[in-house]
Amino acid sequence: MQINWEKELIPFHQAVEELKIKFKGIREEYVSMGIHSPIEFVMGRVKPVPSILQKAARKNIPEDQILKRMKDIAGIRIICQFVDDIYTVVKLIKQRNDLKVLGEKDYVREQKESGYRSYHIVIEYPIHTVSGPRHILVEIQIRTLSMNFWATIEHSLNYKYGGEIPTHIQKRLQRAAEASFLLDEEMSKIKDEIQEAQKAFAKKNTRNR
Amino acid sequence: MQINWEKELIPFHQAVEELKIKFKGIREEYVSMGIHSPIEFVMGRVKPVPSILQKAARKNIPEDQILKRMKDIAGIRIICQFVDDIYTVVKLIKQRNDLKVLGEKDYVREQKESGYRSYHIVIEYPIHTVSGPRHILVEIQIRTLSMNFWATIEHSLNYKYGGEIPTHIQKRLQRAAEASFLLDEEMSKIKDEIQEAQKAFAKKNTRNR
Amino acid sequence: MQINWEKELIPFHQAVEELKIKFKGIREEYVSMGIHSPIEFVMGRVKPVPSILQKAARKNIPEDQILKRMKDIAGIRIICQFVDDIYTVVKLIKQRNDLKVLGEKDYVREQKESGYRSYHIVIEYPIHTVSGPRHILVEIQIRTLSMNFWATIEHSLNYKYGGEIPTHIQKRLQRAAEASFLLDEEMSKIKDEIQEAQKAFAKKNTRNR
Amino acid sequence: MQINWEKELIPFHQAVEELKIKFKGIREEYVSMGIHSPIEFVMGRVKPVPSILQKAARKNIPEDQILKRMKDIAGIRIICQFVDDIYTVVKLIKQRNDLKVLGEKDYVREQKESGYRSYHIVIEYPIHTVSGPRHILVEIQIRTLSMNFWATIEHSLNYKYGGEIPTHIQKRLQRAAEASFLLDEEMSKIKDEIQEAQKAFAKKNTRNR
Repeated sequence: MQINWEKELIPFHQAVEELKIKFKGIREEYVSMGIHSPIEFVMGRVKPVPSILQKAARKNIPEDQILKRMKDIAGIRIICQFVDDIYTVVKLIKQRNDLKVLGEKDYVREQKESGYRSYHIVIEYPIHTVSGPRHILVEIQIRTLSMNFWATIEHSLNYKYGGEIPTHIQKRLQRAAEASFLLDEEMSKIKDEIQEAQKAFAKKNTRNR
Repeated sequence: MQINWEKELIPFHQAVEELKIKFKGIREEYVSMGIHSPIEFVMGRVKPVPSILQKAARKNIPEDQILKRMKDIAGIRIICQFVDDIYTVVKLIKQRNDLKVLGEKDYVREQKESGYRSYHIVIEYPIHTVSGPRHILVEIQIRTLSMNFWATIEHSLNYKYGGEIPTHIQKRLQRAAEASFLLDEEMSKIKDEIQEAQKAFAKKNTRNR
Repeated sequence: MQINWEKELIPFHQAVEELKIKFKGIREEYVSMGIHSPIEFVMGRVKPVPSILQKAARKNIPEDQILKRMKDIAGIRIICQFVDDIYTVVKLIKQRNDLKVLGEKDYVREQKESGYRSYHIVIEYPIHTVSGPRHILVEIQIRTLSMNFWATIEHSLNYKYGGEIPTHIQKRLQRAAEASFLLDEEMSKIKDEIQEAQKAFAKKNTRNR
Repeated sequence: MQINWEKELIPFHQAVEELKIKFKGIREEYVSMGIHSPIEFVMGRVKPVPSILQKAARKNIPEDQILKRMKDIAGIRIICQFVDDIYTVVKLIKQRNDLKVLGEKDYVREQKESGYRSYHIVIEYPIHTVSGPRHILVEIQIRTLSMNFWATIEHSLNYKYGGEIPTHIQKRLQRAAEASFLLDEEMSKIKDEIQEAQKAFAKKNTRNR
């Protein structure tokens, strides 16, 4: 049986749109209180159909089980200013009762060999379709700006080399990952100063948006 | 104690944004199925603070009870092509379990003396703030395009005359309301033809958006 | 030679996006001055590729001449509250020097036999691509809400019946067109009252958006 | 005479909105061609009124000359992946004939003592208001992601300390600036690999958006 992907992915788009609004709302709330927001910005996407099919082939997932088993068809990415903010966001997600955390992986403390850093959470999120309620799997990635910069580039290189990046480029990527880590470190050191500064700054801007 | 309205209204903005995304999602779903959507478009607004205060004064609501008692601080408006669609939307709202219907008024079948027609539903909608969950009152107004056109103009006139529209203008408004009603009637008569037509049309357009 | 439609239509999307921002800006300006805006809202679309090809076949336009000869690949629709507003918008368009009017048709004063009413203007609009400046043809349709309601439905029916709507449905459509015309007439009669009312109303709302 | 700032800033908002659409369009074009885009994303803002007034006081600009003399009331920020991209964007801006470059400063090659890096261009941009055409001054800042991260934080600290950041924090900021510079350096080294990779990647994604 042929799957109508455009139609099947509509609930995933819906879950992404709703979660984007919800996490952006958290940011708004912090800003309005004049407190440093752990969320800098929020992005979302539904995986393109060819990428879904390729991943399913690679992982031996039969086509009729893809929608229930693949965990990152719907994806949310939350970008933070500081490494500490990542853990604040994780805590905020776990407190909500409009979603259910199914699993998590901390690639920030335990970075991958490639240099990849990010915090991953898989959730189940309920939406309401015309034919009734449904639960959608969503992967949330939480990263600093610096981690995100690096990850975007690794993703492109992985795509180019079909997952097998040549050794000399791998080494360059690792050096870039170290520079990215160093930037996060330096930023953390001035964090306390910055937080107080941003608090004053947000107060000033709230009225003038 | 002075109320910081900007801050207090943030949860109301959040409820409006989430509900807009949810009702727009329903429309997307119908369009993707190639079926006539009962929802043509969705608008939302949070009542401006001076209007909140005026209404509270008029209704003798003490300032510290406004947020809990005033039902239309958060407002959603759903516009339909046909009168029948209004009742389909009402049914869709009642089926959802992510909101709770507190009350409803059918000014479509029992129009106001002024000529006003619309279906009103008051709901309680849960949101998640940084400090935990909250329930927000939201008024949903469901109307045809033609009802909405008329209502927008009556609203302006009411504002101009402080609620006391002169008799000769009231009469003109009633004649306009009759023309608006007639347009809805004529449209209903060709509805079945139109629905089949739109079904064919939506199918064609889905792939090309 | 095969035309890469997705790529070729990018400048048309760009023209539509820029013009939407420009006409919405005019509305903002009126609202901020507390004056009735002749523009109620603005929509835009690029014609779907299958519709482009069908129209080209019907009009005997060779595929390599479509982009230069077809005038409504890029379309802007401006919706007005009152019939008079249509002519205000036409005047505003003709005063601009960031676009060039190539032609116009007044189907408001001289409605089509079907009952269709709208004002059409074809313009040439300059955009800047990576490879330099280009001039794009854009059709602007200016209508009241009531004309737009009717036209949307006629469009669906035309599509359903392949342009040959059965006589009994044509008659119903004409009756609906009369009801639409009547509503515009009644609205015009209370226009002066309304304009003054809206002026007062806009002033109040400007500060609270 | 009292200046109605809300009204006076409308043309500045209009210029910002139009320029955002124009630069985002350039990005779309590159992506559709499957070529690395020198523009990663585009932001825009109109300076808040209290900041305008403070700056005017500091620079001794009389209130009635602010709108004509202050160059950064309307601001566009263009974020690039690589340092080289900055110069590609500068070239693209200079080629356009829908704006006029009035001045530029290269704080990328000649960074400020604080560690600040960015390319600044001041332009004059024509918009059409209801009362006719007007020319608006706009400051365009072009930066990498890493420069932007650093600059955001320096801006908050400057605000907190009223422009007089304590020496020990200045030193920390300089170390963070060095880490930011290092990250840009490492990224540049793998740039050629990345560009080819992104080219392949964009091609794949274009069809599935």
